[in-house]
Amino acid sequence: MLAEIITIGDELLIGQTIDTNSAWIGEQLSLIGIKVHQVTSITDNEKHILTALEEASKRVSLVILTGGLGPTKDDITKETLCKYFNTELILNAPILEHLKERYKAFNVTFSKVNQDQAFLPKSCTILPNTRGSASGMWFEKNKVVFISLPGVPYEMKGILTDEGFPKLKTHFSTPNVIHKTVRTIGVPESKLAELLVDWENSLANHNIKLAYLPSPGFVRLRISGVDTNGEVEQIIIDKLNELPHLIGGYIYGFEKETIEQVVGNLLINQNKTLCTAESCTGGNIGHLITQVSGSSAYFNGGVISYANAVKINVLNVKEEDILKFGAVSQQVVQQMAQNARKLLKSDYAISTSGIAGPTGGTEEKPVGTVWVSIASENKTISKIYRLPYNNRERNISVASSYALNLLRKEFLED
Amino acid sequence: MLAEIITIGDELLIGQTIDTNSAWIGEQLSLIGIKVHQVTSITDNEKHILTALEEASKRVSLVILTGGLGPTKDDITKETLCKYFNTELILNAPILEHLKERYKAFNVTFSKVNQDQAFLPKSCTILPNTRGSASGMWFEKNKVVFISLPGVPYEMKGILTDEGFPKLKTHFSTPNVIHKTVRTIGVPESKLAELLVDWENSLANHNIKLAYLPSPGFVRLRISGVDTNGEVEQIIIDKLNELPHLIGGYIYGFEKETIEQVVGNLLINQNKTLCTAESCTGGNIGHLITQVSGSSAYFNGGVISYANAVKINVLNVKEEDILKFGAVSQQVVQQMAQNARKLLKSDYAISTSGIAGPTGGTEEKPVGTVWVSIASENKTISKIYRLPYNNRERNISVASSYALNLLRKEFLED
Repeated sequence: MLAEIITIGDELLIGQTIDTNSAWIGEQLSLIGIKVHQVTSITDNEKHILTALEEASKRVSLVILTGGLGPTKDDITKETLCKYFNTELILNAPILEHLKERYKAFNVTFSKVNQDQAFLPKSCTILPNTRGSASGMWFEKNKVVFISLPGVPYEMKGILTDEGFPKLKTHFSTPNVIHKTVRTIGVPESKLAELLVDWENSLANHNIKLAYLPSPGFVRLRISGVDTNGEVEQIIIDKLNELPHLIGGYIYGFEKETIEQVVGNLLINQNKTLCTAESCTGGNIGHLITQVSGSSAYFNGGVISYANAVKINVLNVKEEDILKFGAVSQQVVQQMAQNARKLLKSDYAISTSGIAGPTGGTEEKPVGTVWVSIASENKTISKIYRLPYNNRERNISVASSYALNLLRKEFLED
Repeated sequence: MLAEIITIGDELLIGQTIDTNSAWIGEQLSLIGIKVHQVTSITDNEKHILTALEEASKRVSLVILTGGLGPTKDDITKETLCKYFNTELILNAPILEHLKERYKAFNVTFSKVNQDQAFLPKSCTILPNTRGSASGMWFEKNKVVFISLPGVPYEMKGILTDEGFPKLKTHFSTPNVIHKTVRTIGVPESKLAELLVDWENSLANHNIKLAYLPSPGFVRLRISGVDTNGEVEQIIIDKLNELPHLIGGYIYGFEKETIEQVVGNLLINQNKTLCTAESCTGGNIGHLITQVSGSSAYFNGGVISYANAVKINVLNVKEEDILKFGAVSQQVVQQMAQNARKLLKSDYAISTSGIAGPTGGTEEKPVGTVWVSIASENKTISKIYRLPYNNRERNISVASSYALNLLRKEFLED
């Protein structure tokens, strides 16, 4: 079962907007067993839209369009669809009511232009948009399904999740594809593949597929199988239960969990508090932790001790140790963690000191060298990382994730 | 002059990778007067690639391809191009030498697979890749130019910038398009448009175009004109000189400058130091400042005073003021800045306290309420922002930028 995606809008072609919609739709369709054959981004032009529709419909049985449904005159998708499906726009009374209520709630005057959004093609099935003004539309022609959606990602995702995907599953009797994601940190894809070679071979016997999805510092493992007999989900679960013996130390979470969420949940469950003392990560660990809603329950705060004077004056790091061992050293990073923990009256402290680059590296401590320390009441552990990146942003980002992961591991051992 | 972009790779269609390449290429081509007509993302499949090439070449005079040039067997772009252009792969001795040196520098063994990357189509002009192993290729057929590039953004951008764009400008005698970007902060697009209505009309007399490019908290203004007679650049400069009178307070920078870079340069030029005291922004201001290489010259560090106890114990904020006025108040935010400035012995301090959401808002202080304070030796200023977002990440991000901008404005007044 193949699909194509057509994204409409001049802003996509002049680079003003990056098309993130088609990647999301592609991923979601693959999760229900529909494969995307092609993505085409085109101009807001009637002839261009008609040609793209005609060509896609010859190749696949599902065409999803996004964009061009706004109220301004450069948005012409709706009128063009009427032409293609040989239908006309008619006023939809329930949608008009919904729009009027929406504008009232936002205290915005309802104008003629807004009313136009309640005119919808007669022959389509409407996929209601509870998050915005432009309705989704479902058409069928020569056994091909066409879904037209607004380009705003939040609205597009909402309509497909609430209306589009359930309807697609029924209409095409899509296979029941089971997906599970296992998230690892701090191990390269090649090493994981080596550790999992026998396990991966054993999956093939059950027609279960494994995908490695790497990003800096992380590799996600996605395990997928088509459940034809109701047994595949259990086989996948059994197979996942074998992973802790093979790669347990690298697994930090499942499905959509981030390392900062996992650490936050561990802290909440054990009713512990955390603080930070950041040098090379410059506040990014605090930023990651506080991106999680509810983090005030366990995060007290931190000290960004970027200058050595702040390490000495605020965190009471011994000046002679900085002179003797350097700011990027075990001696300094462990004092940062221990003293921050006391100063911010927290159960745990994470500290970092390293060389983010691109300058500042030496032969002994090249760019990417990062010391991390975790202090708790009775224990301080420290670890050196030698990150392979000559990229400041990447070193900061990966060092922050690794520091959070070191706390996670320490937590599990306690 | 029209172009099309073809991006090749299964990972683009299943949503594993977001195609950022075509937006970048689209923007860069529009800067040299070439308009992108269509972007097509296709599978790593010979027939699919051949069809896409054939169709695009009928519509436009420039086709840029990215992806499918890796050394593994699923990458088939090079072989497919040989078929399309009726040529063959031959060993390119200088490229082979370059690859060998590259692998030697990285201490990696040079294998048969690596050697294959030195086999390149006989009929193409090679666009050397100084950042990776896969060379760029320039073909011509029936007056259409085809450029094939690796999919890695860093390598693709490098080859086009160093080799592709200069060659395109000569080959197609593209017009000399002049672009200038003016960056504003803290003003909605609609208000800017209102303030600039006469100015914008005056541009039309000179055939100069204005584009508004909004992102949360910011609007970029891009002014473009085709310089046919060598005079347009001066007219644009004269027009830009009129902007300070109209919207001067909102302009923070030009071209690619970020607010954190602008603030950093102001601090460097006046030899001043900065520290932070962050509550709702949770370390993000420190993170933004330290993303800039060289920030250690002016950034001492900061205190992330997320919990009230840290505001009281580390930053000496008066407990009775927190009880009386709340943590999100002018009284608290100004003490945070003043006391952080002393504690971290800095010339300037930025502080924030607000409600990032999605929970925690009240009628009096809804989600998006943020107090910012700037303290210097003789002066403390504070300002309240009421951000319109019900989105935690966006509130944190925009509050951080606005706080940096408040420092910038204060700096200019001193």
